[in-house]
Amino acid sequence: MSPHAVVLLSGGLDSTTVLAIAKARGFVPHALSVDYGQRHRIELERAAEVARSMSVAHHVTVKIDLRAIGGSALTSAIDVPKDRSHDAMATGIPVTYVPARNTILLGLALGFAETVGAFDIFIGANVYDYSGYPDCRPEFLEAFERTANLATKAAVEGRGTFRIHAPLIEMTKAQIIGTGVQLGVDYSLTLSCYDPDERGRACGRCDSCQLRQKGFDEAGVKDSVES
Amino acid sequence: MSPHAVVLLSGGLDSTTVLAIAKARGFVPHALSVDYGQRHRIELERAAEVARSMSVAHHVTVKIDLRAIGGSALTSAIDVPKDRSHDAMATGIPVTYVPARNTILLGLALGFAETVGAFDIFIGANVYDYSGYPDCRPEFLEAFERTANLATKAAVEGRGTFRIHAPLIEMTKAQIIGTGVQLGVDYSLTLSCYDPDERGRACGRCDSCQLRQKGFDEAGVKDSVES
Repeated sequence: MSPHAVVLLSGGLDSTTVLAIAKARGFVPHALSVDYGQRHRIELERAAEVARSMSVAHHVTVKIDLRAIGGSALTSAIDVPKDRSHDAMATGIPVTYVPARNTILLGLALGFAETVGAFDIFIGANVYDYSGYPDCRPEFLEAFERTANLATKAAVEGRGTFRIHAPLIEMTKAQIIGTGVQLGVDYSLTLSCYDPDERGRACGRCDSCQLRQKGFDEAGVKDSVES
Repeated sequence: MSPHAVVLLSGGLDSTTVLAIAKARGFVPHALSVDYGQRHRIELERAAEVARSMSVAHHVTVKIDLRAIGGSALTSAIDVPKDRSHDAMATGIPVTYVPARNTILLGLALGFAETVGAFDIFIGANVYDYSGYPDCRPEFLEAFERTANLATKAAVEGRGTFRIHAPLIEMTKAQIIGTGVQLGVDYSLTLSCYDPDERGRACGRCDSCQLRQKGFDEAGVKDSVES
C-alpha cells in the first residue's frame, strides 16, 4: 500500500513541482491549500486546476484570515515591490514576508496529516530565492519536525514519525523547473505573481515574476504563461 | 515601558486566569481568540466579555475553519462524552482532541506577536486535566519555542527572544481557581463547557464541566456559573 502524504499546494510553480515530486516518490498526495486572505487570490483557483490536472484525489482549502493579525504586503495594502534588481532582492527580508507563515501552514498541514493518517508533509520551501525568509531554512524545518513529533497523538502513540520534506530546499529556480519538466508538470497552469491583474495575468515585474522568468531562461525552457 | 505579550484567550476558566497572570506580571496584553469552528461558539462571546472586563486594549479574533481538515468532537458531529468518571477521563486521548490544535494556535499567536512587537506568548496549557493531549506537555511547548525563534524575522534579526509562558502547566484546577480569585478574576464570565445549550448554559456533565466543578469544590469557592 502506498504511503499517504500531505502536500502544501499554493498553485505556484514551486508547490506544483513539489506535488509532482511527492507523486514520483510513490506517495498518495492529499493537497492542502490555504486561503489566508492573500491579495493574489487567483492562486487558489490555479491550485484547484493543478490538483485536478495532476489527478489528486483529495484537495482541501482551509480559509483563515491572517489579515486579522496583520503585517505583510501579501495580505494588506502595502505595495508589492516592482522592478527590483536581483541584488536588492537578495538583501534583507522583503515586505512580502508574512509573520509566522510557514509555522501556521505547517501546523495546518500537520493537523490535516493526522486526520488522514499521513506522516509525510511536503512543502516548497527554498533557501535561495527568498534568502530573507527565516522560515524557509532547513534549521526551521528541522525544529518544526521535532515539534510535530511531540505535538500529535499519532506520533506520541507510536503510529509513525512525521517527516517534513522540502525537496526544493537547495535547488535553483532553473533546477526546479528542469525537475518539473522531466516529471511532466504543465507550468502553464501555475501562477507565481504577487500582484496579478483581475484576469490572473502575471505582472512580470514583482520579485516572484522576475525569479520565475530568470529560472525559465536559465533552464532553457519557454514559459507559456503570459504576462 | 511595559513589555507587550500575546495571550491566547478562549473565554474559558484557564485562559482567563492566564490573562490575569500576564497582567499581574506587568505585561501589556494583546488577547487573541481563535474561531476554529468549535461547536461551543458561545465561548467566543465570553472571550470578548472577559477581554472587556479585564481592560484589554487589543483583542483580535482570527477565524479559521478547522472543520475542513476534520477530526474532533469539538469541531464536528462526533458526540461529546458525558458523565465520565475521573479515571476514564485520565485514560487515553479523548475524542475532544483537535489534531495539531496548539501548534496551530501558537503559530497564530506567534504571527500576531511579531506584528505587535511582542516576544512573550501566554497559553493556558495544563498537563493534568487533559493528560492525553500531547500538545499540552512542557516538552512540546519547549520545542515550539525553539521553532518560534528560528521561524521569525524579529528573532532572527536579534530584536528579542520569543518565550512561551504556560503558567498553569502544573497547577491543579483548584490551584488555578485559587490563583485567579486572588487576582480578582470574575469567573462568572467564563465558560468551560464543551456542549453548552443555545443560551450558553453549561451542560454540567462533559469532562470540562466536571473538572471545573471539582476544581471549585476543592478550592472551596462557589462557582456562580449556572448549569
